[in-house]
Amino acid sequence: MGQGISNAVGFAIAERYYAATYNTEDTPNLFDHFIYVICGDGCLQEGVSSEASSIAGHLGLGKLIVLYDDNQITIDGPTDLSFTEDVAKRYEAYGWHVQTVGDVENGIHDLRAAVNAAKLVTDKPSLIKVRTTIGFGSMIEGSAATHGAPLKPDDLEHVKQSFGFDPKKTFQVPDDVREAFGIRVQELEKKRAAWDEMYARYSQLHPDKARELERRFSHQLPPDVFKSLPTFTFGKDTAKATRQYSQENLNALAKLMPELMGGSADLTPSNLTSLACSGDFQKNTRNGRYLRFGVREHGMAAICNGLFAYGGIRPFCATFLNFAGYALGSIRLSALSKFGVLYIMTHDSIGLGEDGPTHQPVEMLESLRSMPNIHVFRPADANETNAAYQSSLSELHTPTVICCSRAALPALESSSVEKALKGAYVVVGHESDDASLILVASGSEVGPCVAAAAKLSGEGINTRVVSIPCQELFFKQSLEYQRSVLPGNIPTLSVEASAVHGWHRLSHAQIGMTRFGLSAPAGVLFERFGFSANNVAEKGKALVEFYKNEGQVPNLMSRPIFENFANGAAR
Amino acid sequence: MGQGISNAVGFAIAERYYAATYNTEDTPNLFDHFIYVICGDGCLQEGVSSEASSIAGHLGLGKLIVLYDDNQITIDGPTDLSFTEDVAKRYEAYGWHVQTVGDVENGIHDLRAAVNAAKLVTDKPSLIKVRTTIGFGSMIEGSAATHGAPLKPDDLEHVKQSFGFDPKKTFQVPDDVREAFGIRVQELEKKRAAWDEMYARYSQLHPDKARELERRFSHQLPPDVFKSLPTFTFGKDTAKATRQYSQENLNALAKLMPELMGGSADLTPSNLTSLACSGDFQKNTRNGRYLRFGVREHGMAAICNGLFAYGGIRPFCATFLNFAGYALGSIRLSALSKFGVLYIMTHDSIGLGEDGPTHQPVEMLESLRSMPNIHVFRPADANETNAAYQSSLSELHTPTVICCSRAALPALESSSVEKALKGAYVVVGHESDDASLILVASGSEVGPCVAAAAKLSGEGINTRVVSIPCQELFFKQSLEYQRSVLPGNIPTLSVEASAVHGWHRLSHAQIGMTRFGLSAPAGVLFERFGFSANNVAEKGKALVEFYKNEGQVPNLMSRPIFENFANGAAR
Repeated sequence: MGQGISNAVGFAIAERYYAATYNTEDTPNLFDHFIYVICGDGCLQEGVSSEASSIAGHLGLGKLIVLYDDNQITIDGPTDLSFTEDVAKRYEAYGWHVQTVGDVENGIHDLRAAVNAAKLVTDKPSLIKVRTTIGFGSMIEGSAATHGAPLKPDDLEHVKQSFGFDPKKTFQVPDDVREAFGIRVQELEKKRAAWDEMYARYSQLHPDKARELERRFSHQLPPDVFKSLPTFTFGKDTAKATRQYSQENLNALAKLMPELMGGSADLTPSNLTSLACSGDFQKNTRNGRYLRFGVREHGMAAICNGLFAYGGIRPFCATFLNFAGYALGSIRLSALSKFGVLYIMTHDSIGLGEDGPTHQPVEMLESLRSMPNIHVFRPADANETNAAYQSSLSELHTPTVICCSRAALPALESSSVEKALKGAYVVVGHESDDASLILVASGSEVGPCVAAAAKLSGEGINTRVVSIPCQELFFKQSLEYQRSVLPGNIPTLSVEASAVHGWHRLSHAQIGMTRFGLSAPAGVLFERFGFSANNVAEKGKALVEFYKNEGQVPNLMSRPIFENFANGAAR
Repeated sequence: MGQGISNAVGFAIAERYYAATYNTEDTPNLFDHFIYVICGDGCLQEGVSSEASSIAGHLGLGKLIVLYDDNQITIDGPTDLSFTEDVAKRYEAYGWHVQTVGDVENGIHDLRAAVNAAKLVTDKPSLIKVRTTIGFGSMIEGSAATHGAPLKPDDLEHVKQSFGFDPKKTFQVPDDVREAFGIRVQELEKKRAAWDEMYARYSQLHPDKARELERRFSHQLPPDVFKSLPTFTFGKDTAKATRQYSQENLNALAKLMPELMGGSADLTPSNLTSLACSGDFQKNTRNGRYLRFGVREHGMAAICNGLFAYGGIRPFCATFLNFAGYALGSIRLSALSKFGVLYIMTHDSIGLGEDGPTHQPVEMLESLRSMPNIHVFRPADANETNAAYQSSLSELHTPTVICCSRAALPALESSSVEKALKGAYVVVGHESDDASLILVASGSEVGPCVAAAAKLSGEGINTRVVSIPCQELFFKQSLEYQRSVLPGNIPTLSVEASAVHGWHRLSHAQIGMTRFGLSAPAGVLFERFGFSANNVAEKGKALVEFYKNEGQVPNLMSRPIFENFANGAAR
């Protein structure tokens, strides 16, 4: 509920952006069309539509025309049970052009006139409030009973009779309807031919623009685009926060990929998502690719779904990882709709510090990892962040969430983009070595594991460290590779400043968050909750001892290869 | 963001409900107070506040007074980057009384007058838009730089000087402020004494009402209240959908527990949450305990947090399980704030059928189970639903999500409320038996496992079935009990029509959903995705074979007893 109208705001942004960017003096109407929405009471009660509608008004998206099916009925009964606000006035407050059509059942002339009037208002989106009757023509018209259930057979017959159809026949198309549609098809075919002709002329006059458009709409990446990504030389370059690497990668790509378009939910200086190569998309700067979403996470994600669906755009959007929870309804629809939206989620753990547990994600990584068709990247250094961007833009039909640290993280000596693209790899030790203990971690917890491993190996416990920036990619590798990295029969301790819910698949014991965080500086919290190198080393040693006493390490990789037995439920 | 004002709507509902229910002719002002909110631009951009504000207007909550700190600055910069709507007009559209105070820096007289005017409007909530300057008096007043970071030392001194303080001293209270506060404390002490006196008189005149109030505000359950819960006799009573048992339990309790107050996000006939013992809370029926939330899941959960925080109320709210994703921001705050809110989430799997994957939860169970301090119940029959209600109301500081089926489920012969309260128990077989295979399932998947076990045991594979209605409660049992139910070294197959993310802790292999659902009748989908008794039996047999070939079953219970090694991170 509320997603469609919010997606349409994304469409309306895309239409104006394309028009400003690709229309030319000789071809001023290459992009020039309206976006129509039909929505109901429920759609307009949802917060997500409020957020998106407010932005649409701010941006003055005049091509957007919403027909609000005001039938005054929801599932619980008449809307006056819960929804008596003045919707028309609210949309005026958002800066929309609002009209009301009172009697659409006795002819659609008023509606047609209203749509024509809406088209003439080019600086404001339009809402046309159309008073309708639910189940019009049936025996239970105007009642909530027609909302969720099909009409009964006798009522179906009654409806057909009400409109002059044969009550016994199922599919009937009256001649005048067939004729009207036939004429319309011809009109539209002509329009299409005219547009094709216009485009053929355009591509002769503006071959570069046409080539770019065609590349964008066929979702081809520019050749060698990933070569532009920043590299990092261990021992020479200074290590930074992964949100800073994210900024560098995003900007390197944005310069070469005009299809990258997006912004932040009012956290630009924290998420570090501003684009050096582009200004804002605003009412008077329609060619800008940076979107100021305001404090509207759900609307932001829904608009990005619309931008993706329009075509030729790879949308990105950003907030703190914890506030993915505000946008989950739309993130889920990215995954379900196979929209390769890029979510940049910074401040990805208790490591964000003083803002406290309201801002510190604990369950969000596991929550996202539980969702089908989404990749959750939590890079640990420059190379892994580079890999996260390569992966996210290579995956057209899978959204990616890149979870970034607020603070600087140490660079990993043996990390590489290629290894990180496998989802997990050995960062200390070697696949073939005789490790007594494996530490597996992601993001900001890889560093403490590397330090712990040095300490433990000095004490004679040969310790491997595995960095796992993306579980989903790791599980797509061959079983041989998976077993070479995490053999399953070596005591394995996972370390992630997040819920441990899904880690039992990969580790025998977990250092994680089984409670909400606290408000304190990041260093204090990492120490307090056991993510220091010392605690990791101590607990690693305890794990090795534990299995020495047990006599046997249960093999985590000894499971049937078919992860999921269900028919048709391939990973 | 947006949660505080939405919680306050819950407060304002509670205040009017208590007044209507407990005030008497002789004591007409026992409950009679205003609810004040101070909020900013961000709060009013969030969809959750739009939802809650729309309900507040609908309900005419005249005691609610919101001071909107209109400082025109958010983190990204001036609000005209993203937020140019007419907020005052929007709130008028919601049915609020709206005033504007233009110049609060040069005296609070206008603000005081506006608050007094707001108090006189008793049939509408009030918004007072107060134009302010962020960082007023500092060297960077009016700039976004003052939003997220503390002032620099020299600017701190400057601020102190601006207001006539000694720039070098840290804590300073001027004499006139101390005096004014002293007078106010005396006034309030007198008010408090007068209220105490009024209440003493009230409890003499209305001992029953006073006793009930005291019980409610000390969060004591009525004695023996759980004895009122419906019982089920196996072999005699007809099995129903767990949402129907939920309805029976909710109604049995609501009759005896006036503190149960809540409703549904416009899915009353589907969630089955209507109360036979109480009508709606509406503008003219303030003693009603049923809330018509409209299609506003996020606002609903935030309002329930407010109802709980007010005191003496055990709020419940309902929607389809999948739409918990719309409300996750507020559900998280129930858990973080230790508010024992009851979430009734029906249509809890692909089993909801034709509405399709947009309505079918897949990842939601795992998402909620990853969250600290929340209980996720997925009952399989009448006894388990009874247990879910007992548990949820016994847990004052932990919210509970009860996930219910749309369709009828078979009753379990050996289930019981006591066993279900342990979170998991053996439903076919016995703790001490010599099982070759364990099937572990929740909710609607327990039935197919019971049927599969009968089939397998007939073929000589002694099969135990474990029902696990609540993982969180199970993990709180003694390790002995946990190991008696799920020994860990017997091949274990979990079956749940949901993501398998967290199941590796409990099972060697999983039948689950690793993709989104489809639109089809429930039976077709259960067959299609492998949840039929036949498929469970077949895959169970394959699992037994697999470990026969491996020679060894990895023991899932052979882990260090300390689940989480972190300091202070007790479960």
